[in-house]
Order: sequence, then structure tokens, then C-alpha cells
Amino acid sequence: MRKINIGIIGFGTVGSGVVKILRDKKSFLAEKTGIEICIKKICDKDLTSKRNVSIDKKLLTKSALEVINDPQIDIIVELMGGVHPAKEFIIEALKKGKNIITANKALLAQDGSELFALAADRGKSIYFESAVGAGIPIIKSLRESLAANSFSSIYGIVNGTSNFILSRMSQESCNFTDALNEAKKLGFAESDPTLDIKGIDSAHKLILLTYLAFGKMVSLKDVHIEGISQILPADIVYAKELGFEIKLLAIAKKEGDGLEMRVHPTFIPKTHLLSSVSGIFNAIYAESDLAGDLLFYGPGAGQMAAASGVVSDLIDLTQDIKAGLFRPTMNIVADKSIKRLCSIDDYKSRYYIRFMANDKPGVLAKISGILAKYGISIASVTQKERSRSHVVPIVMVIHEAEEKDLCSALNTIDRLDTIKEKSVAIRIEEV
Amino acid sequence: MRKINIGIIGFGTVGSGVVKILRDKKSFLAEKTGIEICIKKICDKDLTSKRNVSIDKKLLTKSALEVINDPQIDIIVELMGGVHPAKEFIIEALKKGKNIITANKALLAQDGSELFALAADRGKSIYFESAVGAGIPIIKSLRESLAANSFSSIYGIVNGTSNFILSRMSQESCNFTDALNEAKKLGFAESDPTLDIKGIDSAHKLILLTYLAFGKMVSLKDVHIEGISQILPADIVYAKELGFEIKLLAIAKKEGDGLEMRVHPTFIPKTHLLSSVSGIFNAIYAESDLAGDLLFYGPGAGQMAAASGVVSDLIDLTQDIKAGLFRPTMNIVADKSIKRLCSIDDYKSRYYIRFMANDKPGVLAKISGILAKYGISIASVTQKERSRSHVVPIVMVIHEAEEKDLCSALNTIDRLDTIKEKSVAIRIEEV
Repeated sequence: MRKINIGIIGFGTVGSGVVKILRDKKSFLAEKTGIEICIKKICDKDLTSKRNVSIDKKLLTKSALEVINDPQIDIIVELMGGVHPAKEFIIEALKKGKNIITANKALLAQDGSELFALAADRGKSIYFESAVGAGIPIIKSLRESLAANSFSSIYGIVNGTSNFILSRMSQESCNFTDALNEAKKLGFAESDPTLDIKGIDSAHKLILLTYLAFGKMVSLKDVHIEGISQILPADIVYAKELGFEIKLLAIAKKEGDGLEMRVHPTFIPKTHLLSSVSGIFNAIYAESDLAGDLLFYGPGAGQMAAASGVVSDLIDLTQDIKAGLFRPTMNIVADKSIKRLCSIDDYKSRYYIRFMANDKPGVLAKISGILAKYGISIASVTQKERSRSHVVPIVMVIHEAEEKDLCSALNTIDRLDTIKEKSVAIRIEEV
Repeated sequence: MRKINIGIIGFGTVGSGVVKILRDKKSFLAEKTGIEICIKKICDKDLTSKRNVSIDKKLLTKSALEVINDPQIDIIVELMGGVHPAKEFIIEALKKGKNIITANKALLAQDGSELFALAADRGKSIYFESAVGAGIPIIKSLRESLAANSFSSIYGIVNGTSNFILSRMSQESCNFTDALNEAKKLGFAESDPTLDIKGIDSAHKLILLTYLAFGKMVSLKDVHIEGISQILPADIVYAKELGFEIKLLAIAKKEGDGLEMRVHPTFIPKTHLLSSVSGIFNAIYAESDLAGDLLFYGPGAGQMAAASGVVSDLIDLTQDIKAGLFRPTMNIVADKSIKRLCSIDDYKSRYYIRFMANDKPGVLAKISGILAKYGISIASVTQKERSRSHVVPIVMVIHEAEEKDLCSALNTIDRLDTIKEKSVAIRIEEV
């Protein structure tokens, strides 16, 4: 049986998951693929920590170049994360004629264009199934199975940490900090969870989904990004009363000749499938012209789920190599109906708004007066609680308004003496 | 640009959808795949009916053999349906060195083993993405993306007609016949809907999913199959009160060293994603060892959705052919932990049971006496309605019981004078 040698750079959680699968399922995989996948070298800066697999010490090295320069290695699996030096390693590996598998969404979102171009130039492939949704086969489905489709929108719950926190807040009525601490305790959040809770990780993944679905590589700076740390348990309670769940959505959506790119907490109708995606689960909802509205759902994190995505790339690459020829991944073709990226200022939506106001007569009159000045029309108002601190939430749903008008109105309102905290506006999405 | 010629056998709804995509998206597909896909011949017995695409009359023929024997054709797309003569055409085409794309689940479920063996023997492929879930990329995902995974269960809502009828009954409180008639009017049911509403179409699709997920080709006779025609609006009302929805599920599930294969109406908890799959939508829920619990969702029917699945197969095949070598689809490897097919007699479940009884004192005592005799323990009883006909539904939920005990008990109960219709038992599935 033909052997294909691989080198792994980054022997952390996912890396050791990959090693475990390749070892535990050696004969199963060989029988399925007709190829024996051999781990030739593994690089990590930390060679002493315990992993849940034991491996031959001779495979281990601290030198990534030793892996990349090994002429017997056909595939480099980059699982170290971070932009540098992962980028330099991948470039060097492509130049040495290796195919690449990576889970590095931050790197691909930033420098994907450059890396994909280099790979095409060298007749090699970069596979990245586990970069979005761990083991959910969304990358391959968009790139291959749905290649004949054009998309009008992609809605993703693609960050397990944020979704876990919001689900906890919804199910246990706890606040953001408690939910985040629980996520950390359970291993669902990093010690520094900034990228996750601020929506940046979701934006990285959205950029990759957009690249495949719309054929455009968008810069992170062109994605409107909001995180979830401002969400209060009260917002979730109000959302439920109004028939919604709050989810951190990553959205790419055609609007006329423009493409909206945004990540933000969103009210989704409870009747929509996405509203039922809880905990660390991820889901990608895609509206396509031929195959219709599709949903892909599964765990968005976890050692074996992510490793499953990596191994699926490995299997694809072994089949390509077995065929004896470079079989390029499908060409990415830009959606020619998209002429521009939309500005969030022009975005129109219904909104949920929470004001934190002094419980005094006349507050509501002032707020609604300012909204009216900006042409914003109120659909409903709720003011239930009375707190000892005399600061009460006033909750509104407004009819469709333009983002820039709403921002101006909220800036004015937030300067009122009676308003005690920055107001929170959450978009209501008609998925 | 390299051209690949295809021949289509069966120019009905899906066939004309495929032609429409290949024409409307000609340059888009060529740019993506690097291949020009040319329709060389189209066969149908009816060459006069209007389709929603106009094509060159010279492409049309009534002779399938004329298509199959054309030496310039690389791929035969079989969309005529039915077992014969589709099977003979596919065999002939494989012998002539063609690759095959088919949407024919009935044929593959019956004779797949023979056809796949012949294809392997001839170094050719049979692709069948649109045979299950139309354009949902479930076939390719199971075969390729999830190839490293072992599965413990597959739950599918895979028949759009049945799901439309049950959704209608649930949403509009109409009865089975009215819902079926509406499905027919909207084009969601065939004039003879037997295969759909009796669960046979679901069983065909289950056999294909099982083949890919568990590596076993099961005979239709080994699948326990029940349809949906016995479901009353009252059952759906009771289901909702108890926190469930009724769905026609196709289930393949490992149980010890056995594999359960069954299609039947099922109570699913409302909290489960599958319970929200409505109308003609399909969904496949798969429990895997590495990637975890996955759901694939999308329209299960419709001209363009099914055609999207066919075109995705076409794209795969063009890439294989472009690579210049036979690139076999992944080998199917049997799950060695499965030693036998389970008998439905040994199946254990909680059940919902509806008895239609004369509204007389003592009926409930008799029913529960018989159940007790068979060791069946009642969890709850509801008897609400009083009808003018004095026949009332008595509804029970029973604790876990063995199918054979329940059948024996129901046979005895149904012979009571006071029982006026065959009792209906519906399994409650802890998905």
C-alpha cells in the first residue's frame, strides 16, 4: 500500500487529536483510502507536556524547518495557530512543494489571498476544513458540493464560546461574567477570551465562508464587528417575551449590488432553526439559488471534532496525491453581481433598544421625542422593573430604521442626564 | 478548455432542471471547474411535452441505447426513475466505460451492491448525491468529509411529501386526507403517493445512508416500515401537549452488536432540532464518534434543488476525469462491530398509544388489565373528548416496553367489543 508522509507543526489539543485518530483508526483509514498515512515528524516548542497520546520521541522536534525541509514529507499540517510564524512556515512549505492543511482562521482571514495565490502558483493545495465549524463539513460543501450555486446570504453561529455564554445566560438566567467563568472552567473559553467574545473569531470565519460562497476575500477592517459583553440577562428575558433568542451571528448578505459583512448579537425568531443552536454547537445557514435554504450543524469546538475536520482534509489530499496528478481545488469565482461592500451606516433593520434611565416622569417623553426627530418610529415600549437604585431598563422595539439615524439618536439620548448607561441596540434579523 | 460530453436519460422535471443549470451557468461552471460540460444527447420516451428549457431538437432521442453507445459521451446521467429498465441501462453504460450519475434511490436501494461492484470492476464511478435530500450535500459528506468517523445512529426526515403532510396536520389541524390533497395540488405529492406515505421511499433513502455510514447494504425486507396514514389530528394535538412533534423518521441505529433499521412515525421532543423541520424540508441527523452530533438540513424536493445535487456530482466527475486518472470514490468499509440486524420484536421504547373505545364504564380497567398482563406499565392516561358517536380516544404514554409484548397486548385489546378501531401505537424516540 502506498504511504504518504505527513508532518505536523503544533502538537496541542487538536494536533494530538489528529495523532490519536491516525493511530486508533490506522487500518480503517487505510482500507477506506487505499493509502497509509504516516506521521513522519511532529514539531512543537513544548515537548514535555503530557498529551493524551504517547508517541515515539524520535518523531518530535522543536524545529519547524526540520519538518518543512524533510523531502519525504508530502503534507504539512499547521496547527500552531497565530499569524506569525505560522505564515512564514506555510510559505516555506509551499515553496518546498508541500500541500498544506491548516485550522488557522486568523491567518487565512488576514493573508489568505497571498497564501492561496502562492499555492496555486506552486500547484499545491491549502485545505482548511477545521478552520470553520470544527468537523462540520461546511468548507468542502461550499467549495465542492454547492459549487454550482450562487448565494444570497450566509448566517453563521460560528463561535462556540460566545454561543455557550449566550445559551447559559438564556437557560440559567445568569449574567455574562458568570457564564464566561463557567465557560472557562469547562474548557470552552481561553484564558484570554477576547477574540471570541468580541466577535473577531466569528469575523475571521465569516471571511472564509464569504471567500467560498461569494468568491471575495474581504478584509477584517471591512467587517462590522460587535461582541456580546454588553448583553444583560434582562435583554434575553425581553427577547424571549418578544418571541426571539439572542445569538451572535456572522452575516454575509447580498443587498442590491452590495455585500453586507457584519458580526453582532442578533434577535432571531424562535421559530428559526438557528435559534435552537445551543451551547458550543455551531451552525451555518446558507441561502442558495439552486439547493435552497440549507443548514449545517454540529459541535464547533472540541479536540476530536476539530481533528475530524483535519483528517477529512488529509483524506482528500491523499486521494489527490494517489491520483498521481495535481488536482486543484475548485477555482474561486467572484460573484459578479457584487460591486461594493455595504457600509453599516446604510444598514436598515428593526431594532431592540434598552435604555438605562432614572425612574423619573418625563424620561420616556424625552427619549421618544429624540427618536422622532431622527424619523425613528417606535413599535412597542416596555418598562417593567422598578429597582431600588431608581435606574430602570426601558425597552423598545423600533420599526425599520437606518443605522446612522439610530446611532445619532442614541448619541443624543445617551447625553441626557436621566440616562445612566450607554444604551444598547440589538438588530432584529428576519432570517 | 477541455470538453466533457454527457448524456441524459430521463428528461422530466429534474432532467430539465439539470439542462437549465448547465445552460444558464455555463461560463460560471467552466470558470470554476476548468471544464466545459456539453450535453451531447438527451433521451426520453416523451419528446413533445413542454419543458421550461428549450433545447436543440437534434439532441433528443427516444433511444437510451443511442445515448449509451455514443463513444463521445463520458458520463451518463440517469434520471428516468424506476428499477427497470434503468438498471439495464446503467449496466450497459458501465460496460461501455461510462461514469454514472443517478438520482434513482429505489434502484440503488434494491440493486446497489451489484451496480457498485460492477462500477468498481470497470474502474468507473456511480455518484448519487440527489438520491437523498435533493441538493443537501449529505452523500458526499458521509462518503468523503466524514470518512474517518464511525456512526452510532442516523435519523432522517427524508421524505418531503410525508413531512409536508405531517406539518400541515400540525399547523392547520387538518386531517391526513386533506393534507395529502393539498400536497398533490401544490405538486409536493405524486398522483400515486403510496411510496411516500407508506414510508417506502424513506426506507430506500435510509438504505443508502446506512451503506455510507455503516458500510452495509441492507435489504428493504430487513427494514421495519410504517407509514403515516393512520395518524389523526388528535394524535398531533396530544403529541404537542406532551411536548413532542410527530415526524416520519428513518432510523439506522447501533444497539449493542446489532443494527436497527426502521421507518415509522415518531414522537420527537420539541426541543430537538429535527422537530422544527417543516414542510418539504428534509434533515439528516447523524451521531458520529469524532465530529459529534451533526445535522444537515435543506429542501428535500424541488426541481432545482434536486438538479443542484446532480450538477454537484457532475462537477466531481469532471474533476476526476480532468485529473486524467480513475480516482475511485472512497472504499466502503463495513463497521465490524455490527454483527446482525435487529428484529423489531426486540425493540424497546416508550410509546404513545391511542385506543378508540366505546365510552362505557370499565373500558380503561380492561385495557390496563391486559397491558399489565404483558408487563407493560402506564406512565399517563388522557381521556378528554366525548363524542356523539360514543367512540372516544383514550390516549396513553407507556414506560419502556418491548415491541413484541406491546403488539401482543394490542392484539388482545383490539379484540375487545368496546374497542372500535385498530389501536395506534407511536414510538417515542429519545434522539
